[in-house]
Amino acid sequence: MPDEFRAATGSSGASDGTGHGARPAPGEDPFAWTVRARRARQRAGLVRELRPRPAGSPLLDLAGNDYLSLARHPEVTGAAAAAAQTWGAGSTGSRLVTGSTSLHAELEAELAEFCGFEAALVFSSGYAANLAAITALTAPGSLLVSDAGNHASLIDGCRLSRAETHVVPHADPEAVHKVLDGHGGQALAVTDSVFSVDGDAAPLTALVEVCRAQGAALVVDDAHGLGVLGEGGRGAPHAAGLAGATGTVATVTLSKSLGSQGGAVLGPAHVIGHLVDTARTFIFDTGLAPAAAGAALAALRVVRREPERSHRVRAAAILLHERLTEAGLRAGRPDAAVISVRAPAPEDAVRWAAECRAAGLQVGCFRPPSVPDGISRLRLTAHADLSEEQLEWAARTIAGTAPAGAR
Amino acid sequence: MPDEFRAATGSSGASDGTGHGARPAPGEDPFAWTVRARRARQRAGLVRELRPRPAGSPLLDLAGNDYLSLARHPEVTGAAAAAAQTWGAGSTGSRLVTGSTSLHAELEAELAEFCGFEAALVFSSGYAANLAAITALTAPGSLLVSDAGNHASLIDGCRLSRAETHVVPHADPEAVHKVLDGHGGQALAVTDSVFSVDGDAAPLTALVEVCRAQGAALVVDDAHGLGVLGEGGRGAPHAAGLAGATGTVATVTLSKSLGSQGGAVLGPAHVIGHLVDTARTFIFDTGLAPAAAGAALAALRVVRREPERSHRVRAAAILLHERLTEAGLRAGRPDAAVISVRAPAPEDAVRWAAECRAAGLQVGCFRPPSVPDGISRLRLTAHADLSEEQLEWAARTIAGTAPAGAR
Ligand SMILES: Cc1ncc(COP(=O)(O)O)c(C=O)c1O
Ligand SMILES: Cc1ncc(COP(=O)(O)O)c(C=O)c1O
Repeated sequence: MPDEFRAATGSSGASDGTGHGARPAPGEDPFAWTVRARRARQRAGLVRELRPRPAGSPLLDLAGNDYLSLARHPEVTGAAAAAAQTWGAGSTGSRLVTGSTSLHAELEAELAEFCGFEAALVFSSGYAANLAAITALTAPGSLLVSDAGNHASLIDGCRLSRAETHVVPHADPEAVHKVLDGHGGQALAVTDSVFSVDGDAAPLTALVEVCRAQGAALVVDDAHGLGVLGEGGRGAPHAAGLAGATGTVATVTLSKSLGSQGGAVLGPAHVIGHLVDTARTFIFDTGLAPAAAGAALAALRVVRREPERSHRVRAAAILLHERLTEAGLRAGRPDAAVISVRAPAPEDAVRWAAECRAAGLQVGCFRPPSVPDGISRLRLTAHADLSEEQLEWAARTIAGTAPAGAR
Repeated sequence: MPDEFRAATGSSGASDGTGHGARPAPGEDPFAWTVRARRARQRAGLVRELRPRPAGSPLLDLAGNDYLSLARHPEVTGAAAAAAQTWGAGSTGSRLVTGSTSLHAELEAELAEFCGFEAALVFSSGYAANLAAITALTAPGSLLVSDAGNHASLIDGCRLSRAETHVVPHADPEAVHKVLDGHGGQALAVTDSVFSVDGDAAPLTALVEVCRAQGAALVVDDAHGLGVLGEGGRGAPHAAGLAGATGTVATVTLSKSLGSQGGAVLGPAHVIGHLVDTARTFIFDTGLAPAAAGAALAALRVVRREPERSHRVRAAAILLHERLTEAGLRAGRPDAAVISVRAPAPEDAVRWAAECRAAGLQVGCFRPPSVPDGISRLRLTAHADLSEEQLEWAARTIAGTAPAGAR
C-alpha cells in the first residue's frame, strides 16, 4: 500500500514527527509521546473533540446517517425496547455459542430477501462485517483491488488480510482491469457503492464486467446505498442488477438507513457458510444486542411498507445540492443522500461547522485523516423527513456562514 | 508472527489445502473454493452451525458470558428500553459527528471511576476497543509483545498495527522481559487478564514489573475480569494495583459481566484523547446504540450496589471445578468465571456438548481455530444466579456424558 495512502488515512501517531520512537527511561511515562503528538495535531488544526448531545437537541440535523428518519420512529424504538425486554439487553455470547436468537435469524432472512441475496449474516457493526468479508474471502496469494476512496473499514480489511493489496485510483474500472489482468490467482475487487465522504456512486456495472471477464469476485460495501438507492431502497447492488449474482458479495450497516446498530454480509449461501466457519470478527465477537437486531428488523419493515422514503431522501439531497451550487459553493452532485462541500483548510471547516451550529444547524466536518485526499469538507446528509422549508433554510445558513475561499 | 500460530487462530481458508488459489475462468463461480474448503473442514470435524435460540430457552446456561446474571435483570433491560425510547434506536453517526450522547459520556465517566482509571472511551464492541488500543498506541518501529493465548481481537490488533509483533509463550513474564530487553524503541506488551478459553489469569504483577523496568507500556484486556475479579468486580487491573497507573491501559467489554454490548478503553486522559483523535475503529465506526449504553450503565450501577455478585460467580466456578475434577475430568482451575474441560478430539467435543444439550444443559464447545493450542474443549461459564443445586446437577450431567478418553 503506498505510503501517501497510509498517511492520508493513517491510524496512529506514526507520522507526527514527534519522535516518540525513542525508548522511555524506566519511571518515565511510556505514553508521554501522545501528549507531544496531540500538540502537533493542535498546530495542524486536527484535534478532535467529543461533543455529547442532549436527548432533545434543538439543532437541525444535517450530519447524522439516519437517512430515512427511522432511528426515532416509534415502531423502531418500540421494537428495540420490546427486544430488550424479551431477549435481554445483550446476546450473552458469540453467535456460535449463545449469541444467536431467532430474532437474529429473522433479521438475516428478511434482509437477504429484501436486498435480493440468497443469505445474510449479521455482525455487531458494519466495520466488523467489512473486516470479515475481506479477510475470510481472501488468502495468501489472493489479489485485493481496492478503490482509493474506500472506507476505513475496507482498508483495514485489506490490511488484515494476507492478500496482496493494490490500491487503484478512485472510480476507475479500467485501472481495476489493468491490475487484474496481470494476476493469475484468485482476486477480489472491493468498493464502496456510495463513497462515504463525497457521496458519489461507484461505477458498479463497469466494475462487475471487468471482474467477470477476469474471473474475479466483487465485494460492494452498500453502507450508504441501502435504503436510499434501488427500488424502494433495496440498495445499489440491486439497482445495478448485481443482487444475488454469482461472485458478488454486499456488505451493509444497520446503523444508517435502518437507524440502529450492526452490520451484515449478503451473498450466496456457500459464501455465508464460509464466513460462519472462518470469519474472525464473527466467531470471536459477541452477537449483536437483541435491541439493535429488533430495531433494524422493524426499520426494514417500515422501508418495505413505505418505499417513498427512499425517494424523499434522494429528492432532499438534490434540492440541497442545487441551492448550495446556486450559492456558488463547491458541492459534489449527490448520487445518494450525502453531499460534500469543500472548505479551504481544516481550520475553516471547523469554524464553518461551528457557525452553522451557532445558527441551529448541525453539519459534519471532515478533516484528515477522515478524508481520502487531504481536503477538508463539510459533509451534509439528507433525511427523508426534512421539509422543503428546512432544506431551504439549511442551504441559506450554510451559504451565509461560508468562509472566504469556499467559493 | 510464526506460521503455526497463524494457522491455529487462522482467519480464512488459507491453509485448507483445497487449492483455491487458482484463477477461476470467466463465468465460473469465483467463490467455488469456499465449497471445497467447507468439505475439507467437514472431514476434520470443524464445521460450525448457527443454532438460534428461542426467547425462553429451557436449557440451563453454562455457555454464555453473562457472568453476573444481569442481561435479563429488569433494571438493565428497563434501562435499555428507556434509552431506545429517549435517544433513538441508533446513535446515528460516528462518535465525533452525531454519535455521542450524554448517556455515552455518563457511562464513560462511571466506568472509569468504577475501574479506577482517569478516563474511558466507549466503542461499539470489545473487539473494536482492542483494535483501537493496539493500533493507536503503536507506530512503525514500535515493538508489540503478545501472549500466545491472547484473544483474536488482540491478535488482529497486532496484525493491523504497523509495529513489529513478537508472540511470547503463554503467561511467561521472563519471555516478555527477554524480548523487551533487546529493543531500543517504544514497546507495548499486550495480554488478556483472564484468558478467554481456559479461564486462567495472567501474571499481571510480574508483567508490569518487567514492563516498568524496560520503559514499556502494558495493555490489559479485562474482558473476563470486569465484574468478576477485584474488589466488588472492579476488575483484574484494580486487583493488581494497576488501575490508573502510568503506562497501563485496560480494555473491557460491556457484553459479558455488564450483560449488554460494546467495549471500552480505560487509561490516562491523554491516552484516551489520543484515541479520540487517531483510533480508526473509533473515528470510522457508528457510536454504540443508546440502548446498549443505557443497559451497560444500569448494569454497572447494580454491580456497584451488589458487590456480592462477583463473589457468587467465583464461588460457583470453584464448586463446578471441584465436582468436575472429582469426577476425573481434566478441568483447569478457574481464576475467574471460566472453566475449560479437555476433550479427546473435535468430534468428541461436539458430541459431548450435544449430549449435554439433550440433557438440558448448554455448554460451550471450542475447537480450532477458536483454541490457541489446537486442543478441543468444553468451555463452561459460571453465573452469579446459579444455585448450588443447579451447579451440582450440571457437573453430574457433564461427567455422565463425558466421552471415553476425557479422563
Ligand atoms: C462506507 C462505510 N462502510 C462501513 C461503515 C461502518 O459501519 P458501522 O458504523 O456500522 O460500523 C461506515 C460508517 O460507519 C461507512 O461509511
Ligand atoms: C478476551 C476477550 N477480549 C475481547 C472480546 C471481544 O469483545 P466483544 O465481544 O465485546 O467484541 C472477547 C469476546 O468476545 C474476549 O473474550
